[in-house]
Amino acid sequence: MNRKLRFGMIGGGRGAFIGAVHRLAAVMDGRAELVAGAFSADPTRSQLSGADLLLDPARVYGSYTAMARAEAARPAGERLDFVVIVTPNHQHFPPAKLFLEAGFNVVCDKPVTLSLAEARRLRTIVRRTKKVFVLTHNYTGNAMVKQARALVHAGALGRIRKVVVEYPQGWLSTRLEATGQKQAAWRADPKRSGIACCLGDIGTHAENLARYVTGLHLGSLCADLTTFVPGRLLEDDANLLLRYRGGAKGVLHCSQIAIGEENSLNLRVYGDKASLEWHQEHPNELVVKYADRPREIWRRGNAYVGAAAKKFTRVPAGHPEGYLESFGNIYLEAFRAIAAEVGGRPPPKDLDFPTIDDGVEGMAFIEAAVRSSRRGARWVRMPV
Amino acid sequence: MNRKLRFGMIGGGRGAFIGAVHRLAAVMDGRAELVAGAFSADPTRSQLSGADLLLDPARVYGSYTAMARAEAARPAGERLDFVVIVTPNHQHFPPAKLFLEAGFNVVCDKPVTLSLAEARRLRTIVRRTKKVFVLTHNYTGNAMVKQARALVHAGALGRIRKVVVEYPQGWLSTRLEATGQKQAAWRADPKRSGIACCLGDIGTHAENLARYVTGLHLGSLCADLTTFVPGRLLEDDANLLLRYRGGAKGVLHCSQIAIGEENSLNLRVYGDKASLEWHQEHPNELVVKYADRPREIWRRGNAYVGAAAKKFTRVPAGHPEGYLESFGNIYLEAFRAIAAEVGGRPPPKDLDFPTIDDGVEGMAFIEAAVRSSRRGARWVRMPV
Amino acid sequence: MNRKLRFGMIGGGRGAFIGAVHRLAAVMDGRAELVAGAFSADPTRSQLSGADLLLDPARVYGSYTAMARAEAARPAGERLDFVVIVTPNHQHFPPAKLFLEAGFNVVCDKPVTLSLAEARRLRTIVRRTKKVFVLTHNYTGNAMVKQARALVHAGALGRIRKVVVEYPQGWLSTRLEATGQKQAAWRADPKRSGIACCLGDIGTHAENLARYVTGLHLGSLCADLTTFVPGRLLEDDANLLLRYRGGAKGVLHCSQIAIGEENSLNLRVYGDKASLEWHQEHPNELVVKYADRPREIWRRGNAYVGAAAKKFTRVPAGHPEGYLESFGNIYLEAFRAIAAEVGGRPPPKDLDFPTIDDGVEGMAFIEAAVRSSRRGARWVRMPV
Amino acid sequence: MNRKLRFGMIGGGRGAFIGAVHRLAAVMDGRAELVAGAFSADPTRSQLSGADLLLDPARVYGSYTAMARAEAARPAGERLDFVVIVTPNHQHFPPAKLFLEAGFNVVCDKPVTLSLAEARRLRTIVRRTKKVFVLTHNYTGNAMVKQARALVHAGALGRIRKVVVEYPQGWLSTRLEATGQKQAAWRADPKRSGIACCLGDIGTHAENLARYVTGLHLGSLCADLTTFVPGRLLEDDANLLLRYRGGAKGVLHCSQIAIGEENSLNLRVYGDKASLEWHQEHPNELVVKYADRPREIWRRGNAYVGAAAKKFTRVPAGHPEGYLESFGNIYLEAFRAIAAEVGGRPPPKDLDFPTIDDGVEGMAFIEAAVRSSRRGARWVRMPV
Repeated sequence: MNRKLRFGMIGGGRGAFIGAVHRLAAVMDGRAELVAGAFSADPTRSQLSGADLLLDPARVYGSYTAMARAEAARPAGERLDFVVIVTPNHQHFPPAKLFLEAGFNVVCDKPVTLSLAEARRLRTIVRRTKKVFVLTHNYTGNAMVKQARALVHAGALGRIRKVVVEYPQGWLSTRLEATGQKQAAWRADPKRSGIACCLGDIGTHAENLARYVTGLHLGSLCADLTTFVPGRLLEDDANLLLRYRGGAKGVLHCSQIAIGEENSLNLRVYGDKASLEWHQEHPNELVVKYADRPREIWRRGNAYVGAAAKKFTRVPAGHPEGYLESFGNIYLEAFRAIAAEVGGRPPPKDLDFPTIDDGVEGMAFIEAAVRSSRRGARWVRMPV
Repeated sequence: MNRKLRFGMIGGGRGAFIGAVHRLAAVMDGRAELVAGAFSADPTRSQLSGADLLLDPARVYGSYTAMARAEAARPAGERLDFVVIVTPNHQHFPPAKLFLEAGFNVVCDKPVTLSLAEARRLRTIVRRTKKVFVLTHNYTGNAMVKQARALVHAGALGRIRKVVVEYPQGWLSTRLEATGQKQAAWRADPKRSGIACCLGDIGTHAENLARYVTGLHLGSLCADLTTFVPGRLLEDDANLLLRYRGGAKGVLHCSQIAIGEENSLNLRVYGDKASLEWHQEHPNELVVKYADRPREIWRRGNAYVGAAAKKFTRVPAGHPEGYLESFGNIYLEAFRAIAAEVGGRPPPKDLDFPTIDDGVEGMAFIEAAVRSSRRGARWVRMPV
Repeated sequence: MNRKLRFGMIGGGRGAFIGAVHRLAAVMDGRAELVAGAFSADPTRSQLSGADLLLDPARVYGSYTAMARAEAARPAGERLDFVVIVTPNHQHFPPAKLFLEAGFNVVCDKPVTLSLAEARRLRTIVRRTKKVFVLTHNYTGNAMVKQARALVHAGALGRIRKVVVEYPQGWLSTRLEATGQKQAAWRADPKRSGIACCLGDIGTHAENLARYVTGLHLGSLCADLTTFVPGRLLEDDANLLLRYRGGAKGVLHCSQIAIGEENSLNLRVYGDKASLEWHQEHPNELVVKYADRPREIWRRGNAYVGAAAKKFTRVPAGHPEGYLESFGNIYLEAFRAIAAEVGGRPPPKDLDFPTIDDGVEGMAFIEAAVRSSRRGARWVRMPV
Repeated sequence: MNRKLRFGMIGGGRGAFIGAVHRLAAVMDGRAELVAGAFSADPTRSQLSGADLLLDPARVYGSYTAMARAEAARPAGERLDFVVIVTPNHQHFPPAKLFLEAGFNVVCDKPVTLSLAEARRLRTIVRRTKKVFVLTHNYTGNAMVKQARALVHAGALGRIRKVVVEYPQGWLSTRLEATGQKQAAWRADPKRSGIACCLGDIGTHAENLARYVTGLHLGSLCADLTTFVPGRLLEDDANLLLRYRGGAKGVLHCSQIAIGEENSLNLRVYGDKASLEWHQEHPNELVVKYADRPREIWRRGNAYVGAAAKKFTRVPAGHPEGYLESFGNIYLEAFRAIAAEVGGRPPPKDLDFPTIDDGVEGMAFIEAAVRSSRRGARWVRMPV
């Protein structure tokens, strides 16, 4: 495609967090440009946000419905190639449905919807419209995560026996939502966040990362959810035992009250031949451990790194890439699919980004965990 | 006391592991000397071991019963001040009982006995004989563990909300016990090891460490134990959810099949004011994390470290002390108690070593975990 | 400014390294767009590179002189706000002079010129034309480097006594330039690189970083340069003793033959009150060390971090920013200056990017080091 | 030898540091016992120290000359097998000479003497008396240092090109010697310490470690010594450029004013095939780096570690050994030599401890560095 892809954004106005991340990740490689947006349900705020972003005011809207209507009417040469949905969870499904059905490709933040039922409905819509739908489980965009996955798939670890995945944060260790802090307010509000706070915000990343790397699917789980901060309406901490289909066991714990932790998503995978570990806060390294030879530190950008990781490398070894670059990698894959769709070509065979199916599995995980915890932290099966 | 304490050893002959550790830990500070031993049930092997250790052959025995008899008959100036029991688990209770009742102080390796019932019987004996009984949960001897405990007790962490303690090892990732390797053989044998392998060998260290630092006692737990290696008779992996009395939650996982892991006992404690973490493989550091100021690395041997840690410091900051020094710290405390007992003085008030009560609590933990797992990983209460 | 800044690029065609870095760093924040370029002296290659970058072919040139001529003639609404020079060293001065004198602002890669004399001439031109000139010593764009500088300036370290700065790499440990590898070929060629290879490529970053953080200027130095790889024409390793004006001492060593090192730029600064260290490969952390309290780990994105660092933070703590983000920070500051210049406003007072003065000081450093080494590694004064 | 070796100590009374280290290192493995000592030139203090150490008062002396006289007269069954000299530097040569000539084997702390001339005289005495003389450059006792040396000797690194060795400490960043602190007082006093403070105390360890691992000998050096703390009589900081015989280059820097540094002895060795690094504060690991495969972390106690390292391993992998264990390894080798000497057997062929030759080379290094610095930090040749 000999032009940049054009996109619009739903949500992500002033004071938002993840919208800015998406914009940066989408444009950093010079393959896409933001040209429209419904950044806020408050039209003035939306316009101010659009002005911050140097957009044409005519393409800044006070609602995503207005945006869908107006943008669908644009001529081909101006038409949006995709939209990015970065609103709170309860506002994922409605715009996703609207834009998909209006013929737009969609990139959507996680968790995919407010409930498993909604996720399944969205899956039906995606399948029917045949549009590209990308779910930004951004950590799977990391080059060394891809290397980890490649090692597992190549059998370097042997049969996987155990998975330990953890995601402690500390930013909600006080009742931040009561102060009006925007990020906290919606995440701790069941109406906007759904049945889970910590699990939906970060637990689902942990589940997705472990699944992406190992290829294993959960069979059942036992979840002990806790609300430590008085007055909070949803859980802020979760400890889970996992049983994967095929016999592997696991532990997943995540927290928003782990004071002093920032964004400490860590994965350890133990096989019967070797093991690996990856730490999101030191994302350029992958540790591989053996029974009988020295521990190895695989570092992004080196010649010995495999093709799957090399493809997602912008700068040489020793020049750290981070969170935004990993996020950008999801977009690079999305662009391949979107460019094909826009150009009327079949999608490439080797696309590597999270899809609506990952979204459905993630919502199933959240709902199973909440159900387990409500029953006194008993084992429950994952819905198929 | 103006002489070295004299001790004898039960177990720890050629090919043993923990016996050599005890000997080194006991003598390193020049306060005790090994003078007798029943190192093996094979008299020849016991004599050879005694010769390795430069002992008088007359004080080397083919059985601990022979040793108890002969040593009890020695004159005061030669009499053992204590014995050290480093046999497999099934041989803890019988010699402990025998020597305590014969008037000797006892240092015993963990887990304290083969079963909770035995542990309780031993507790009765200890209380009745009024002899010193020391259980070598050696990691609690580490100076920075003591610093961690002091911080918790001083309220620096606030109210404890969450504990994550883990202890992965990889040395039993194949069926090593079938090769005749001595350490593996007895640990994987229910007759000598008891109802647990991984939990008894290392899980109990993890439980004890978390309890020592936080002062919290388990209320209930949910344990998923697995035997990954075909043909093995006991579990080699354990994942547990924990609920402490008072409301704190926790995760404990340990493994002997985590390939490439060595002895990676790690503790994280999260309070409502601050958090801490300690890693046994980097034992001279304690990480303290706050919501609102830089993370701190407390390092052994510095002037800012508190009295509890300073007391157990031999060399200046930056000169690493390790596993053996921590183990030796347990002995230094034991010596204070033993010297008082031998001298007919009341025990010091501030003794800091694991006791028979820790042993009982540790066995209760193991039995609860096994019971939970056998019931399908359901929650069970800790026996009081 | 209610539009993106427009820029063109000199160099950076297919197969180049630093051109792609500049493009990414310049556009990531959505404040600038690439619209023109003379990417290669080979017109075909330049056009192919322009096509890769989705540019209008009419604004892709086969030489920077053609570009200067054509772009100067564009109407105001299309006119370039700045050009970026990313050619080998010998092609810094000529285009910089040409574009500055044609009225364009300039961003230029380091080292600024081929020689100190050229750097001084360029300084005269910059002063005369009053255009913005930005030298991309990108590591000083890092948020935690800015925090380090702020701590030094606030007196937190007291009087600086010692600086240790090092920059080992290993990529030229064989005669890579003989294989046709483009990056190696020009750096090892005195005609294109100047009198130094390792010092010009990375040593000058180390000198600049130490100066930026400490505010200290070199008084004299003693340099031992070595060419380890047979057949190489320039040095590939350098060890220097430093004496700063005011009495601080220092060590600087850098290498391109340190096998297995990637981009290990590290800085340690020791004052009489505290010390700090920063590691480029773990750029989100700053270690602060004291005599009498725990070591601190300052981490990017936290509330306790100062204003100078906060300003250059895109994502929250624990979401690693890396090399490209730091590079982008240089551009964000450049944009403030360029927007003012383009808008006819005086430059902001608090601009924070490397200037032509840094370029002159960097070239003086390189020439002093080469002179010292040629004289048998004797001490030489830095030219004033 | 079927008994413990008997030793006496010169120096190391109450308030001393290194004496306690030697005692612990010597006895930890149960192969030696302290039976005599002249712990202080103050007879009362010496007796009190002896009592602390539970010694027979009859074998505690007020001077080493008295000790030499009395101990030489002991019957064979009580006779000292060796003495340990842990006095300040100026009191190394006199007792070493006295005891060697009286027929005792000697273990001596470093630096070996007060001057190079003295070291050479001592070498003559050692050769003439044929007694065992061991110099405790303790860091070379570390198992992973031995592994590093084995890798270099086996050619795994190829030809060595560059060595970076550093040893920053911060404990003398103020004028501690003026407060009466005993360790500082003698080290900063030229009469007791010699011509160097920082270089003699720690620089010589750095030089020795680099030489031990690489097998390279210095050809010439350029040293910039500084006294940062006002009123101090000797240097407290040193920066050196090194040229090894055979063409390798190096950097050595050490400091006692590097605030917040503890005992940060670090070694990096770069060859033309691979590189390695070792950090004293994390002594159980050795990092090996390659151009074309993942970085390796070799960890003490694993099966893949070579024989030279395995021999000096007491506990399994993951159970950290530290400073004292490394020190103890020097003693284990010393014991092999001493036992042979005492038993009238020829010394084992494969002894691995620092000798008087290392002492002479260390003193030559110190004197060359001081000479270089006094001449304005000019290059000087190492005396042969």
